[in-house]
Formats: sequence, structure tokens, C-alpha cells
Amino acid sequence: GGIGSKLCGMLGKERGRGWRRRGNLLPATDGDTKTMTFLQEVVDILLAYIVESFDRETKVIDFHYPNELLQMNNWELQDEPATLDDILISCRATLKYAIKTAHPRYFNQLSTGLDMVGLAADWLTSTANTNMFTYEVAPVFVLLEYVTLKKMREIIGWTDGRGDGIFSPGGAISNMYAMLLARFKMFPEVKEKGMSSVPRLVAFTLFSLCSGKLIPADLERRILEAKQKGFVPFFVSATAGTTVYGAFDPLIAISDICKKYNIWMHVDGAWGGSLLMSRRHRWKLDGVERANSVTWNPHKMMSVPLQCSALLVREEGLMQNCNQMHACYLFQQDKHYDLSYDTGDKALQCGRHVDIFKLWLMWRAKGTIGFEAQIDKCLELSEYLYNKIKDREGYEMVFDGKPQHTNVCFWYLPPGIRYMEDKEERKKHLHKVAPVIKARMMEYGTTMVSYQPQGDKVNFFRMVISNPAATFEDIDFLIEEIERLGQDL
Amino acid sequence: GGIGSKLCGMLGKERGRGWRRRGNLLPATDGDTKTMTFLQEVVDILLAYIVESFDRETKVIDFHYPNELLQMNNWELQDEPATLDDILISCRATLKYAIKTAHPRYFNQLSTGLDMVGLAADWLTSTANTNMFTYEVAPVFVLLEYVTLKKMREIIGWTDGRGDGIFSPGGAISNMYAMLLARFKMFPEVKEKGMSSVPRLVAFTLFSLCSGKLIPADLERRILEAKQKGFVPFFVSATAGTTVYGAFDPLIAISDICKKYNIWMHVDGAWGGSLLMSRRHRWKLDGVERANSVTWNPHKMMSVPLQCSALLVREEGLMQNCNQMHACYLFQQDKHYDLSYDTGDKALQCGRHVDIFKLWLMWRAKGTIGFEAQIDKCLELSEYLYNKIKDREGYEMVFDGKPQHTNVCFWYLPPGIRYMEDKEERKKHLHKVAPVIKARMMEYGTTMVSYQPQGDKVNFFRMVISNPAATFEDIDFLIEEIERLGQDL
Repeated sequence: GGIGSKLCGMLGKERGRGWRRRGNLLPATDGDTKTMTFLQEVVDILLAYIVESFDRETKVIDFHYPNELLQMNNWELQDEPATLDDILISCRATLKYAIKTAHPRYFNQLSTGLDMVGLAADWLTSTANTNMFTYEVAPVFVLLEYVTLKKMREIIGWTDGRGDGIFSPGGAISNMYAMLLARFKMFPEVKEKGMSSVPRLVAFTLFSLCSGKLIPADLERRILEAKQKGFVPFFVSATAGTTVYGAFDPLIAISDICKKYNIWMHVDGAWGGSLLMSRRHRWKLDGVERANSVTWNPHKMMSVPLQCSALLVREEGLMQNCNQMHACYLFQQDKHYDLSYDTGDKALQCGRHVDIFKLWLMWRAKGTIGFEAQIDKCLELSEYLYNKIKDREGYEMVFDGKPQHTNVCFWYLPPGIRYMEDKEERKKHLHKVAPVIKARMMEYGTTMVSYQPQGDKVNFFRMVISNPAATFEDIDFLIEEIERLGQDL
Repeated sequence: GGIGSKLCGMLGKERGRGWRRRGNLLPATDGDTKTMTFLQEVVDILLAYIVESFDRETKVIDFHYPNELLQMNNWELQDEPATLDDILISCRATLKYAIKTAHPRYFNQLSTGLDMVGLAADWLTSTANTNMFTYEVAPVFVLLEYVTLKKMREIIGWTDGRGDGIFSPGGAISNMYAMLLARFKMFPEVKEKGMSSVPRLVAFTLFSLCSGKLIPADLERRILEAKQKGFVPFFVSATAGTTVYGAFDPLIAISDICKKYNIWMHVDGAWGGSLLMSRRHRWKLDGVERANSVTWNPHKMMSVPLQCSALLVREEGLMQNCNQMHACYLFQQDKHYDLSYDTGDKALQCGRHVDIFKLWLMWRAKGTIGFEAQIDKCLELSEYLYNKIKDREGYEMVFDGKPQHTNVCFWYLPPGIRYMEDKEERKKHLHKVAPVIKARMMEYGTTMVSYQPQGDKVNFFRMVISNPAATFEDIDFLIEEIERLGQDL
């Protein structure tokens, strides 16, 4: 645009001329030029970091122990201001020791990768710096949240995308909102009279079970047990894509039980919900349309920058009734526009960060088919990994069968322990293998993957793939690297 | 830096050459140049928006009703991808209809203004795109959170800055964390056995009271009443800076009562906590050092970009014990570094957005004295407004005495109702004045200020000043504008 070009002209002229010595940043009078130059310098640092992050020759991490890192820069806060030069140095230092989460070989968490359109959208969001509570202060973002939640509900399979929803700071908070709704739906008096006005409530979820899946028969048995004790089962949280194994609960069977006992059915699809975008994989969530609420985190499998978590709710109006506090300094009833767009009173939170724009803009840029292709590709990579190691010497799979999500859980057995006859001794050794390989990965900075124990299973690697930058070669690299770093153990 | 300059060279060459037609953005092979050009185009749009935002000749808002705004652009999500040109158009449209929250005449919320260093830091945070749960994935940010929370605790007055804390998504969530801590401290069994294992708990806060202040004698009476009924008072939330009146509760008197009855004392300083940075105003929070926990939102009075809310806790270790779930896929106990830096298990949330860097970088850039000057200036402006209107014809103050924070609550009485004898009739008319003036402000787009009713008080203006861009002239403008837009009512 016109102003954009004018600024670029200003920048070009200013760049070489010792801008740092003159005046202050905006809002200071005549702070424009200095501000533009400063922000452009920061952007140059960020652009260089982005290019580096995607470069396989670059380390994923330049690792230092906490006490070392504390010494590597002056991180202390002072009474006196620093110069803008110092600020730029701080930015560079911060990025130097950061994890390159966009790196094609970063596999450490469920959220990996960096989408360029998502990033641009997040920069815009920061610049707009507003709050989701009312249409008054976030007109466009409120509309985009409306449009996007409706689309997500259509994809879930609710008629005409009807229902309700909200973006919250993360999966745990979204799940908490679902629980509050379930409780309020059954006992609306809880809002005014508190927990002492309701019987003892019981919620069911698999999260702490080792099986990795909620077994319908087991669920029904436990519901009956709870009822026999006089408790009230009010909430079942089925999981679509468990964190460790990537398992999907059988939603249809669970929904039958929930219907039978009149229990709110929630689907925690924080990790697996995105598979709804894939025509090839969405059958894993068959029955999701029977749920009362669904958590779905686009910041995980869809690679939307953090944070972006949606709670979708089938019943309209319930969120408002459950959470509204009528704060009269926000939700004046005599405003001049349609108040149904003041969505803030659906949330327990007062202020709410704008998390919608990055998802919306990415969706525009990719289209639904672009997200589908991205998700399908990650699942292909995961199948490739599974096929590569399932019969490979030195590997054992943690669970049987092909992974349902991109989670591939496996042990790597270095040659030295591969043929140990004493099973207990072997297990004891094996437990130490993954942590050492992981520590070495971080010290070399070549790749990062998670490991953990689970129940009676000793430390194993949990590979997950959500990074759109990863390729078959990166999977090959991971396996080579595990073997290179672990063969002497 | 070197790479930065190289990129700028590339950009210069590429700009005019129809970049949009060739190849894909990163992580596509050879996507560097296209990515740089695209992001730079977005940055140019943002820089232009920033310059405009601080320009008093620009509208604060180009207001449209929701149904109009829905027609003004194609906001729908499609199956097919859009072009990058369309993405840039969407960015421009989104900003065109956004509220300019940085505008010197935007006074609508407790969070206003846009700090250039804070913005740069938020752009960096988006680019680093990581999660606060472990040192492993956010080494620098975890250290900066540690350094900053310690500094904030020193400012509160806790010996050597000892204690604990966390940044959460907002004041409501921070206050919820405080409540969970209080409950756990008194009844640790609640974590495993649930609410049915504890007696009926009672929390006290002023929030719904009209007086605007928690009266110690009243508090004590209510505590005794609750105890007589067999309930257990476990939590008092005193407010340092109420949302509407900006009132500060008498913390010393409240702390005496909390001590006497062994109740957790929380200070909700979401709005007023920042006055601790001011030597001139911090007496308003005298006694805060006696609190067990303090909420303090730098995204309000310190103008840190949204979201940035801290919960500070006096007792060390309690947060971890209260909230930890030992998720073994994050908090492996055999990692190779000091595990006390894996702070994620202090929070109920699993993922946690990086909210620290913008505060830390702004603190570096301003120094403590810079924040102090900024806060003192806003309070001066507020005093100026109070002095200007308290005896001015056509104005009535909503509460007596000088405001303690920057909240100035007042009625504007247009000439037509100024001398009405029928008090009820006058009240009825007055109730309609502020909403109309506000609607006109938004339609003209010249300024924005909040209004509301409160208890038996009809709609009044609640002016708050947290915007570092505001000047005495902007305060004058606000008053002139209210009179211009309201004189015919």
C-alpha cells in the first residue's frame, strides 16, 4: 500500500544513519521513523531465525544447562533503561538459545512446526492487541470466531453447524469448560448454591488408565458401581487421540452408554480432533457427532501457532447460562448493536486472548483440502516409521498393531543388551537407554523426540509427527541418529 | 546481522518481480525468498497500521454493525486455498475494521495502548512458538519467568523475592489458581478425595458489593456468621484497584482478620498491582506483603500486550504440590538437567503460552523507573480529569473524593435535563445519555470510553487511563467530545 511504500522509503534512507541516537519510539512525537527502523531490525532478526529454523544444517537446539544459560547473557532486570541496541542483543540471545520448533527434525511435542501464514496472522494479532470479550473491542475477530466455530461444528457433523463454542487458552481449560457445562446442565442450581447443593458427582475418563483406551464394558461397570454408592455419574470424557499412544476411544459404544445413563458425553480431541479434517482418517472419530461437547486443538495437529484450542458444544445457549456473570462494565444491555455478538460472557475468563485469527487465516490460505493434505502426510510419515522399525533388529514396539494417530511408541535396544537372557536385568538396562540417547540428541542438537515410562513399561520413545516440514528422509535420519547415539549403551 | 542483510538484499531484488506466482512458502524447498517477501509484505501492512494508530487524525474505529461487517469482506472458509494476494487483502480488511487500541484517545478498557518493545517481543514470541511446560522446550523463557517473578515478589515485599508464581492466561485464571491453593493448603486431601471430603467452604470478596470496598468490620461479621453455620471460611480476596471505581481495599486491616481466623489472604491486584512500581502510589497497597497470594496483570496498567497475568505466591512448593499430575510424557524424572526448572507442573493447564518475554523485554527497555514514570503519568492525567470536571457545570461525580486509581466515574448531564426538578424523571433521562453518546463516539470513531450502570446508579461514564500515548490534550478532547455529542440529548 501507499503508506507501506512510503515507510520503506523512509527505512531505506534511515537504515545506515545511526538512528539509535535520536528520539524515542512511538508514541513519542516524531517517533515514527525510529519505530519503523527498530521494528524492521527486529523483523530482520526474526526472518533470519525463520530461514535458519527450516535448514537441516542448523541445530534444533544449542543446549545449555540452566546454570550455564543464566551466565550466558545478562538476564537480570534493572532499575535503569537499556538501550535499543541492548534490546536487539537480547532478542538475538533469546533466539540463539531457543528451541527451533519449526525445525524439520523437531518431534518432541504434539505441537511442532511453524506455519508462515499462521505466523503472519499472529504478528497481526499482536499488533491489533485487543480482547475477545465484546464485539465492541474486537468486531472482526468476534465474527471470525463465529464463522470458524460454525465450520468446525459442521465438520463434527452437527446439523447446519448449529451449537455453540469458544476458543480457550488450551485443552485443559477447554475440558474444564466442558465439565462445568455438564454439571450445570444436570444441576443448574450449582451456579448459585455451590457444590454443597448437589450430590456427589463422578466423572469418568481413561486418562490415568494404562490400557490407553476406555473399554465400554468397564465404563458401564464403573458407572453402575458409582450409582450403587449413591454417587451421580455426570460426565464421561472419551479421548480421541491419547497423548502417549494416540489411541481413539470407541465413541459410538461410549455414546450408547452415556445415553442409557443420561450422562454428558465429552470428546477430548485436543490431539485427535484434527483427523476430522481428513476423509481418509475421520472414521476413527465415528460417533463424535453424538457428543455433547468436543475439545479440538488446532495448535496441535494442524500446526496453528500456540495457543489455539476450541471447545465445541452441541446445545445452544448453555455456555452463556452456565458462565455468565453479567459484568455491567462489559455487557451493557443498552448498546447500539446486536448483543449476541458479545460472546465474552460465555467464558469464565474475563479477558480472552485473540486466538482465532491465525487459524482463520491459515484455513483461508490452505483451504480445508490443504489441512487435509497436511494431516494425511503426517500420518503417512508415521506409518512409514512404523513399517520401517516394526521388524527391524533392535526395535520393539510398545503396543501391538498399526498406530491410529501419528504416535509411534518403541524401544530401541542397543546391541549390548539385545540378547540379555535375564529379563529383569535387560529391563533395568533398557530403562536407561532412552534418557541417555535423548540427552545426547540435545547436546548434539540434531533432533528431539520424547521418551517416557508408562505403568510397568520402562522408558520408551514416543515419536509424534505434527510437523509439516518433516519428510521421509527426516524419519530415516531419526532412526539413524538413535542408532548412532545409542549403539554403545 | 549477516543473514538479515542478505535477506534484505534478496527482498529488494524480489519485490517488483511478481513473486506470488512462483513456488510455495517455507517449509517448501527453496521457499525462503517467497516467505521473506510475503512476511515483509505483512510487516509493511502492520507498520502502516501502527503509524496510523498513533495518529490523532485517524479514527479509533471504523464502526459497522455486525450484519454490515459480515458483508464487507468474504469471511467464509472454503475448501480450496486462497492466493497469497487474497491473504494480504484479508489482513488489510481485518485491520481496517479493527479497533485501534493504541490510539491516544482509546480509553475503553483497562488494557489500552501498544508498546513498541512489547510488540517486538510478542512477534519474537510467536516466531519462537513454544510452550512453557518444560525447560527442555523453552529454556530461555523459563529462566526469564523465574527472573521476572522473583523481581515482582521483591517489589511486593517478600524477603529476598522468595516464594513462587506463574503466568496464567488472565486475572480470572490467576484468581482461580489462588483459590485452589488456599483450599489445598487447608485441606490437602481435596486433591485426591474431592470436594465431598471437605466441609462446606466459603470465600469472601467484594466483587458483587456496591460499596466498592471491602469493609473490615463487615468482613469479620460475615466470617463469624459463616462459622456459626458450620461453614469453613478459607479464602478472602481483597481487591487492589476495583474494575469500576478503582478502589483499594484496606489490606492491613484485612490481613489482621485473615490472620485471626487463619484464612488465606489473596490480593486481586489485576488492575491495581502495577501501582507497586510507583514510589508515589504504592502506599495504596500497604499490607500486600502480608498476603498469601497476589494477582498482578502487567497487561493492564503496564501496557504489556495481551495476555500477561501473574499469580505470585508467598509459600514455596505449594503450587507444585497442589497442581502437579506427574504427566510422565512431560516431567520425566531422569532428565539430564535440573528438574526444578520444569515449572509446568505448577499449573492445572498442560500447555501454557509464553507470556513472559514481552514483559521481560519491556522491563529491560524501560527499567523499573520507566514503568514507574509511565504509571505516574497515567495517574496524573486522571487527577487532571478529576479536577477538570468535579466542579464543572453539567458534571456529577459518581463517588466522593479523589480517585485512587485512574478510574474517574462521572455523569454528564446535557443542558436539557440539568435543571429537571423531578428527580425520578431526571434519572430516567440521564440513564439514556451515556449509551447514546457512546454510540455516537463509535459512529464518528473519534474516541471510546466505557459506561455502565451500577446498583441503583444509572448509566455513568467510567473513564480509565492506562494508555501511555494519552496526553492532557486528549483528556480535554474527551470532555469536549462528550459535550459536543451529548448537548442535544
